[in-house]
Amino acid sequence: MKKIAISTGGGDAPGLNAVIYAVVHACYRKGWEVYGSRNGYAGFLDLEEMIQLRPRDVEGIYAIGGTIIGSTNKGNPFANPVKNLAGETQVIDISDKILRNFKRMNFDCHIAIGGDGSMEIAHQFAEKGMPVIGVPKTIDNDLEETDRTFGFDTAVSTATEALDKLHSTAKSHDRVMVVEVMGRDSGWIALYSGISGGADIILIPEVPFDMDKVCEKITDNDLRGKDYSIVVVAEGAQALNGQRFIKGGLEPGRQEVILGGVGEWVATEIQRRTDKDTRSLVLGHLQRGGSPTTFDRLLALRFGAAAVRLVEQETFDHMVALKNSEMKAVPIADAIRARKKVDLTSDKVQTARDIGICLGD
Amino acid sequence: MKKIAISTGGGDAPGLNAVIYAVVHACYRKGWEVYGSRNGYAGFLDLEEMIQLRPRDVEGIYAIGGTIIGSTNKGNPFANPVKNLAGETQVIDISDKILRNFKRMNFDCHIAIGGDGSMEIAHQFAEKGMPVIGVPKTIDNDLEETDRTFGFDTAVSTATEALDKLHSTAKSHDRVMVVEVMGRDSGWIALYSGISGGADIILIPEVPFDMDKVCEKITDNDLRGKDYSIVVVAEGAQALNGQRFIKGGLEPGRQEVILGGVGEWVATEIQRRTDKDTRSLVLGHLQRGGSPTTFDRLLALRFGAAAVRLVEQETFDHMVALKNSEMKAVPIADAIRARKKVDLTSDKVQTARDIGICLGD
Amino acid sequence: MKKIAISTGGGDAPGLNAVIYAVVHACYRKGWEVYGSRNGYAGFLDLEEMIQLRPRDVEGIYAIGGTIIGSTNKGNPFANPVKNLAGETQVIDISDKILRNFKRMNFDCHIAIGGDGSMEIAHQFAEKGMPVIGVPKTIDNDLEETDRTFGFDTAVSTATEALDKLHSTAKSHDRVMVVEVMGRDSGWIALYSGISGGADIILIPEVPFDMDKVCEKITDNDLRGKDYSIVVVAEGAQALNGQRFIKGGLEPGRQEVILGGVGEWVATEIQRRTDKDTRSLVLGHLQRGGSPTTFDRLLALRFGAAAVRLVEQETFDHMVALKNSEMKAVPIADAIRARKKVDLTSDKVQTARDIGICLGD
Amino acid sequence: MKKIAISTGGGDAPGLNAVIYAVVHACYRKGWEVYGSRNGYAGFLDLEEMIQLRPRDVEGIYAIGGTIIGSTNKGNPFANPVKNLAGETQVIDISDKILRNFKRMNFDCHIAIGGDGSMEIAHQFAEKGMPVIGVPKTIDNDLEETDRTFGFDTAVSTATEALDKLHSTAKSHDRVMVVEVMGRDSGWIALYSGISGGADIILIPEVPFDMDKVCEKITDNDLRGKDYSIVVVAEGAQALNGQRFIKGGLEPGRQEVILGGVGEWVATEIQRRTDKDTRSLVLGHLQRGGSPTTFDRLLALRFGAAAVRLVEQETFDHMVALKNSEMKAVPIADAIRARKKVDLTSDKVQTARDIGICLGD
Repeated sequence: MKKIAISTGGGDAPGLNAVIYAVVHACYRKGWEVYGSRNGYAGFLDLEEMIQLRPRDVEGIYAIGGTIIGSTNKGNPFANPVKNLAGETQVIDISDKILRNFKRMNFDCHIAIGGDGSMEIAHQFAEKGMPVIGVPKTIDNDLEETDRTFGFDTAVSTATEALDKLHSTAKSHDRVMVVEVMGRDSGWIALYSGISGGADIILIPEVPFDMDKVCEKITDNDLRGKDYSIVVVAEGAQALNGQRFIKGGLEPGRQEVILGGVGEWVATEIQRRTDKDTRSLVLGHLQRGGSPTTFDRLLALRFGAAAVRLVEQETFDHMVALKNSEMKAVPIADAIRARKKVDLTSDKVQTARDIGICLGD
Repeated sequence: MKKIAISTGGGDAPGLNAVIYAVVHACYRKGWEVYGSRNGYAGFLDLEEMIQLRPRDVEGIYAIGGTIIGSTNKGNPFANPVKNLAGETQVIDISDKILRNFKRMNFDCHIAIGGDGSMEIAHQFAEKGMPVIGVPKTIDNDLEETDRTFGFDTAVSTATEALDKLHSTAKSHDRVMVVEVMGRDSGWIALYSGISGGADIILIPEVPFDMDKVCEKITDNDLRGKDYSIVVVAEGAQALNGQRFIKGGLEPGRQEVILGGVGEWVATEIQRRTDKDTRSLVLGHLQRGGSPTTFDRLLALRFGAAAVRLVEQETFDHMVALKNSEMKAVPIADAIRARKKVDLTSDKVQTARDIGICLGD
Repeated sequence: MKKIAISTGGGDAPGLNAVIYAVVHACYRKGWEVYGSRNGYAGFLDLEEMIQLRPRDVEGIYAIGGTIIGSTNKGNPFANPVKNLAGETQVIDISDKILRNFKRMNFDCHIAIGGDGSMEIAHQFAEKGMPVIGVPKTIDNDLEETDRTFGFDTAVSTATEALDKLHSTAKSHDRVMVVEVMGRDSGWIALYSGISGGADIILIPEVPFDMDKVCEKITDNDLRGKDYSIVVVAEGAQALNGQRFIKGGLEPGRQEVILGGVGEWVATEIQRRTDKDTRSLVLGHLQRGGSPTTFDRLLALRFGAAAVRLVEQETFDHMVALKNSEMKAVPIADAIRARKKVDLTSDKVQTARDIGICLGD
Repeated sequence: MKKIAISTGGGDAPGLNAVIYAVVHACYRKGWEVYGSRNGYAGFLDLEEMIQLRPRDVEGIYAIGGTIIGSTNKGNPFANPVKNLAGETQVIDISDKILRNFKRMNFDCHIAIGGDGSMEIAHQFAEKGMPVIGVPKTIDNDLEETDRTFGFDTAVSTATEALDKLHSTAKSHDRVMVVEVMGRDSGWIALYSGISGGADIILIPEVPFDMDKVCEKITDNDLRGKDYSIVVVAEGAQALNGQRFIKGGLEPGRQEVILGGVGEWVATEIQRRTDKDTRSLVLGHLQRGGSPTTFDRLLALRFGAAAVRLVEQETFDHMVALKNSEMKAVPIADAIRARKKVDLTSDKVQTARDIGICLGD
């Protein structure tokens, strides 16, 4: 009999619950016990926050967004912000306490589901002696060492569905619609949803964009009788030098207040330069919510089951990963080294260009 | 044999195409001809913009958002903005020209689909002698004289689906999520989607809100162990005197730049007063797009078929309307008098209060 | 303080959980207690099957199909089938026992959610002295005294979505697709989904159909270049005399085994008579499942809140109902008298005929 | 300038239109012309059935199921069934005529989208000298030489959504629900949807099933308090010897008429052996229809763009394929050799077993 702790950390991603579901069921079949630590590491600090999870506790959750054990973006056990009596915030290391409790509770392994921040912390705990298995989670699909992360397909589907909805309005009113999607460092969501949702222009962090090219595409559309255009912008997209967008600040040379994000800036510029009726929209948290797609459910369930197999094999300090359609174990340390960028030579980017999508260059 | 012209005016609403579908099919069965005037009245000014519509031209469009004949928010034939050679905008009356062309093209009737602006114009044309039938369209459901307008159920569904998605994220992260939905003058979309989507707080134009009450509800939730809250705000919601929100301007007394709409302001206030992590989202044009729900399709098809029956009966200058589940004809002049507000004594509002939803008062 | 019991009976309908949600929240705000009786009346027979329901027990259930307290199609407390030691089934009356337990548990009222069978039983209990409030439930929308029942809009949406999916296949392959939907006594689902889903032919129990007319419509379609047809058949549709369909039996005169339901028979006949490639599909239980539509959620929540108001007013032996967009209370006895049929003079039927849909007559 | 013909053959699959969309746009950007041959090869026999496709002809079709140029399951140009004057069906070879017309129309290449039947025919034409590029299409995902085919993810999603809907009904009524999904030779759809949709039992052609094991799983569920079960059956699943199911025939030893498919037989057996209320449902053509998922749209668009690149490189008699996330060209002859079966050693099958799903063995 083994006793497993499981936690979810970082931003929300559809599929977290499916991982939990698979871990609970796979352990149940082996006669192991599973406990969920609420809100990241809180269960290791307060026993009331450590909840036993049996099959009946996870019934049907594979289809539900969010995480039943809560998550957190705040706090790092190795540098935890605490307010002292004077109301000042101090940073203290509570990792020893967590490790001590982990041992006192007789856990055999901690399955940590999270993004690169959570993986970094998990790896540090592993180095301190905690048997840890990582399950990668990032809606942006930008984690190295795994071909895919769950939540990404759902986010892309949500964004594509939004594009579908905007098409009819754009067309009925001869408008340009600009949609800002997630992707601070990489343009995966923008690229996938833009191709699938019939965008005319896709702007991603990997390709600094030229507003002249963007506007040229829009006027080209007009010329061939297509009086509307759809633009997808990743939140981390950057204009070429001299057209640089500065969030919440002033744009050099124009001295106007830039109110929103890059999507709003692009929309304002298009309207100004082409005189076309242009509207913008920020999808924001809609991309993090909702029932996971079938693709994400299956991937998350596979990750969960694979994590339990790693526990059995005692392949600790490793993360489950998808490589060429198969489950693999990779050292956590390797996974957190760098962000995965869109490969501009891939056939997906080529497809975008082939079918006439402008990437702003 | 009759010859019918059809046009769509104003903002987009899912179901416009279903009205067109029903008109085309109902006329086809009578051996009548139907022509669609592109972008409002453009077909009466330029023959190339007047398109014949036969059953094969409208195949499957009842399920598609937007309008296949285009719409416009600009221009009123009775006060049409035109640029002269000097680049100045002049307003001229082109209604006589349109009426003349209408007669030269031998049309027997014009079926005008649109909101109160379009109905006003249609009524003016009717007074000048054009046989006109109106079909009411407003996503906000705020047209008098009809219980429902198509597009509203779809908009409510889109907003409710968004709330469903935000629930899991809000819950996983103990957050407050504020969603701004359409409704400048009336809170129909906010009320319906808020109740159906499990909102804790719904703010509508009909009920000036008190931020103290809003924040009290959120802290009450916390007290009973529900660490997250969902707030739905109609774009036209107004805070009580002294807490007034001014779009894009300065808030008196606090002297800060208010960047976005009322939703963002509410979110900022909640965060400031409760110290809870609060995010806001503007649904915007997503509410106008997409395939109409089954409810809206049926309503729009009924409107279209009823309009053709009114043509046959020559009940001109009337608008089709839904009254107590039945199709009725009402004088257009009656319909455009006032906006339909949410009745605060209705059982829907009572339901919201009964199940613990805070309306900000 | 009051103590309320709630039960759900009969077949599944999306929205049951939303009624429960509203009852629990509305009672919670009044300081009342709510208990759910598992699987119909089981909670009155076994205390373990009587579960307290507080707001946290019903979190988010308004969006989920099914019923969290279980339902049953079997058993009537006034004529309950029980197996004796010899294995024979005996029918006994256990209503006195239930009433006795109801009183011993100190309940003030029983809110019974169900179809006409459950309403009949509730009414009998009311006559025996149990304070009962009914909430109408039938996916078929065939209950008298209420304009709408929850679950119906969801069922229609599911059926319409299925028609949308079949359109593309039918068209790509020049096929006839026959879809059998629910509706043993009335054709509401078939009529609504058929109109909304672009059916060419809709067969409902209220209009005995003539296969000659059905096939004529299909060949007419072919003539005008539309090489495919969609047929919606309510499970209770009946062919005109001489073409009578007998489920699972033999068709007089043709002496062939009829394998499935009326949908399959219609498909076989169409293929035989028109020589067109024809396929059939039975939607079955798909129509009973899934998340309720926004329309059904709101209606169910209103029903639940209205039921609690009736408890407060002690308007027992009554059922909540929707009449002309408002909540009303009607005597249960009135509601169970007859099934609501499709009114063949309504504008919905007229719309179907106007836009060229064949009703088989 | 090149002139390209494109055709779609075989059963419907969501994504066909997206391939056409990509081919048309990619060719348009090169200044090439594209023509669609209606209903398979009909365009090569009758010029009226050969339709020019420009960007405006394919607007928005990437999001729509079916194929705008029609498909056919009938007819093989190398063995075409024709009725002679006496009404007898003769099989004749019309491939020479097609090849002659192909040359007279000055086509440079034929892009054939289809399943293994269509690929076989395309290969035969290639051997006769027609420059052919294949695009693989099978909803069953059972084509060798490509990791994935478009349409599969959509079919799996439709099946999973159906399972989601049936869960609430099964649970509310303590029922067993049996769902028969596509998959004559391989169990891909059943396996993927079954895992993603929370099935208790998945029966696939690759694993002959034992009804004893199936029923044991159901009674095990009951024992641990889960009173309902969901069973997914691929249409080609086979019981172990002695329990063999014979479609439409008699079951040896029991001498009863078996009415439907394997799903109905499994349901009947479960009901008979476990005495649990059991219902069955055949998803059928629903799996072939509807808007392609984002995943399928992207894959289909990539296939289309890659096919045009192969035309440019003149890599004829090859098929585009997905291999380890990248586009590849494989000889058509290699692709049609065998059906891809579910690999019983893959981690997907292992995941199913790990989380307690019974595969009937």
